[in-house]
Amino acid sequence: MTQSRYFTIGEHPEGLPERSLFNFETRELPELKDGEVRIRNQWLSVDPYMRGRMSGVKTYVEPFRLNEPMEGGALGEIIESRHQQLKKGDRVIHMGGWRDVAQLDGDQVQPLPDIDVPPQAFLGVLGMPGMTAWVGLTLVAELKSSDTVLISAASGAVGSLAAQLAAQKGCTVIGSAGSQEKREWLEAHGIRAIDHHQSADDIKSALKDVAPQGIDVYYENVGGPMLEAALDAMNDFGRIAVCGMIARYNESAPSAGPSNIAAVLTKRLRMQGFIVHEWGKGHEQRFYEQVGPLVADGIIEYRETVEEGLEKTPDAFLALFEGSNDGKMLVRLNG
Amino acid sequence: MTQSRYFTIGEHPEGLPERSLFNFETRELPELKDGEVRIRNQWLSVDPYMRGRMSGVKTYVEPFRLNEPMEGGALGEIIESRHQQLKKGDRVIHMGGWRDVAQLDGDQVQPLPDIDVPPQAFLGVLGMPGMTAWVGLTLVAELKSSDTVLISAASGAVGSLAAQLAAQKGCTVIGSAGSQEKREWLEAHGIRAIDHHQSADDIKSALKDVAPQGIDVYYENVGGPMLEAALDAMNDFGRIAVCGMIARYNESAPSAGPSNIAAVLTKRLRMQGFIVHEWGKGHEQRFYEQVGPLVADGIIEYRETVEEGLEKTPDAFLALFEGSNDGKMLVRLNG
Repeated sequence: MTQSRYFTIGEHPEGLPERSLFNFETRELPELKDGEVRIRNQWLSVDPYMRGRMSGVKTYVEPFRLNEPMEGGALGEIIESRHQQLKKGDRVIHMGGWRDVAQLDGDQVQPLPDIDVPPQAFLGVLGMPGMTAWVGLTLVAELKSSDTVLISAASGAVGSLAAQLAAQKGCTVIGSAGSQEKREWLEAHGIRAIDHHQSADDIKSALKDVAPQGIDVYYENVGGPMLEAALDAMNDFGRIAVCGMIARYNESAPSAGPSNIAAVLTKRLRMQGFIVHEWGKGHEQRFYEQVGPLVADGIIEYRETVEEGLEKTPDAFLALFEGSNDGKMLVRLNG
Repeated sequence: MTQSRYFTIGEHPEGLPERSLFNFETRELPELKDGEVRIRNQWLSVDPYMRGRMSGVKTYVEPFRLNEPMEGGALGEIIESRHQQLKKGDRVIHMGGWRDVAQLDGDQVQPLPDIDVPPQAFLGVLGMPGMTAWVGLTLVAELKSSDTVLISAASGAVGSLAAQLAAQKGCTVIGSAGSQEKREWLEAHGIRAIDHHQSADDIKSALKDVAPQGIDVYYENVGGPMLEAALDAMNDFGRIAVCGMIARYNESAPSAGPSNIAAVLTKRLRMQGFIVHEWGKGHEQRFYEQVGPLVADGIIEYRETVEEGLEKTPDAFLALFEGSNDGKMLVRLNG
C-alpha cells in the first residue's frame, strides 16, 4: 500500500487566507487502474491564481473541492505505471500538486521536453509562468521591438520573464516591484524600475520620469493603483494584456476601479484578459523553440525561491501575497 | 461681400457647460482662394463628442480654438466655387458646422452619396453616427448572429442604429434608455429595454431578468454604473466596444471606475476603445452598401430631433446631456 500526504481546505476563505485554513491529511491510495500512473513528486508549484480556486466561485478555473486534495503544477518521477507509453523512472509534469504522491490518468501527465535545463525550470521559466509571459507579450499584446513596455510585478515568476523577453526583443522596458532589492535586480538587467507600492499619483509621476515617451504595452499583473497609473501613461492605440490582478485577489469587498477608465476610449486602447491555456494552445512548440535556448544558454536569467518540504506548501503559497518571493516560488520535496 | 454667422467659446468649461458659454458672432468672409468653396449650410449636427473638444485638452480630436468658429458635421449647398470638381448647387457634407456660411478647401468636403434618402440622413443614420454604430459592431466587436448584445443609450443617434443593425443580424438585443418613452420605442422594435438611470446593482438585476443567458457583446455609450453592470453580466470571451462614455463627459473631478474591472481577467474580455475615422477608414463603401438599402427601404428606422434656426445650436447641443433627444439631434437652418 502507498500513502499520499496532501493538503485540503475545509471552507472558502474571505480575504487573505490564514495558515490554519489548510489541513494536512493522509490517505491510502487505491490500486492503479488501467492507464494510470503513480508519481512521487519532487517539486511543487504555488501560484497566485490558486487563490481564485479557493473562493468556491467558478471563474476561469474550477474551484478547489472542499476536503479533497488541492491541485497545482508539479514535477515528479513515475514509481508505478499501467500506461502504455509511460514507464517507471520517467519524469513528468502534471497538475497533481499539493501532495507527495499523485495518482493520475497517464494522459494527464506530460514528459519533460528535451531541453538542457534543471527539471524544475519546467514549472517556472519553461512552464506555465514562462508560457504566460510569452503568450501575453507575443500573442495578446502583439509586441513590437519599437514598443515601450511596462510590466508590473516584474520580479515575479511571470513578470521577470516578460521583462527579459521584452528587453531581448529590443523594447524599452519599465518594471515595477515592491522592494528595493527587487528593483536593483531589475536595474541590473537593464530594466527601468519603479515602486508599485505607492498611490496612483506617485506611480504616475514615477512613470513620467522613467518613460516620458509614454507606454505602448502594459503587461498587467497587479491591478489597483498600478492600473490607474498605467492607463494615465498609455499612448494612443496601446495594448494592455491583463494577466493577473494580485492586489485584488484577497479583497473580501470590491474596491473602486480606475477613475480614468475613459482612457480606454480617448486613447483607443485595447484591454484583453487572457489565460495561458486558451491563448497558448497549439503554440507550445514555438514557445520552447524561442525561449528554451535563451534559458539553456543563460541569456535569460530565472530566479527561484525554494521552500523545503511538503509541509511548507501553504507557507510558500501565502508568501506570494507578501511579495517575499524572488521569481518562481517552489516547494522541494525530500522524497 | 458675404457674412458668416457662427458660434465660439471664449473659455474651457468645467462640468456641464452653461448656455452663456457660447458666443454668437459675425464676420465678413474673405474672397475665395483657388480650390476653395463657399457653402450655405442647411443642416448642422451636434454630437456628444464635441464636449471633449471644448476642454482644451487634446484627446482624440483637436480641441476647439477659443474665439474661433466651432466645428462640426454639416450639410449644405455650394454657393460659390473655385474648385475644379465642385460647382455651384452641389450638396456636400463637411465639418464646417456651428455656422451658416462655411468657406473651406474643396478637398475637405464630400458630395452626397447616391442613395435615395432625405439629405440630412447623411449626418445621422448614413453619416458619422451610423458609421460609428456599424464599425463598432462589425469591425470592433466582430458581431456574430448568435451573440446577445447589450447597447447603452440605445435610442440615441448611434445606439438606435446599433440596436437595429444587431437585431437585423438575428442577435438577441438589449437596449438601455433613460426614459419610459424611449424604452417603449425600443420594445416596439423587438429590443428588450432596461433603464440605465439606476444604481449599478439595480441595472445588474434588470439585466439578469432580460438576459439570463448573459451578454456577449456590449456596445458602450454611457460608462458609469452601466459599465459596471455590463461587466457583471458579460459572458466569457465577451467583447466590449467602447464608443462613448457620455456619463463622464461633464465631470470636473474623476469618479470611481468599475469595482469589478477584474472581470476583464476572469472572463477573458476584450475591451476596445475606438473612433470611427480610424477604424472605419476604407470601409465607407461597404457601410453604404450594407446599410444604405436598409435605410432607403425603411427597414431601419431612424429618428431625428430637429431644432430650428442657427441660434438654437448650443441649446440642441446641451439637450444631448439631458437625454431629451430621440435619435439624431439636428439643427435646420432657414436659408
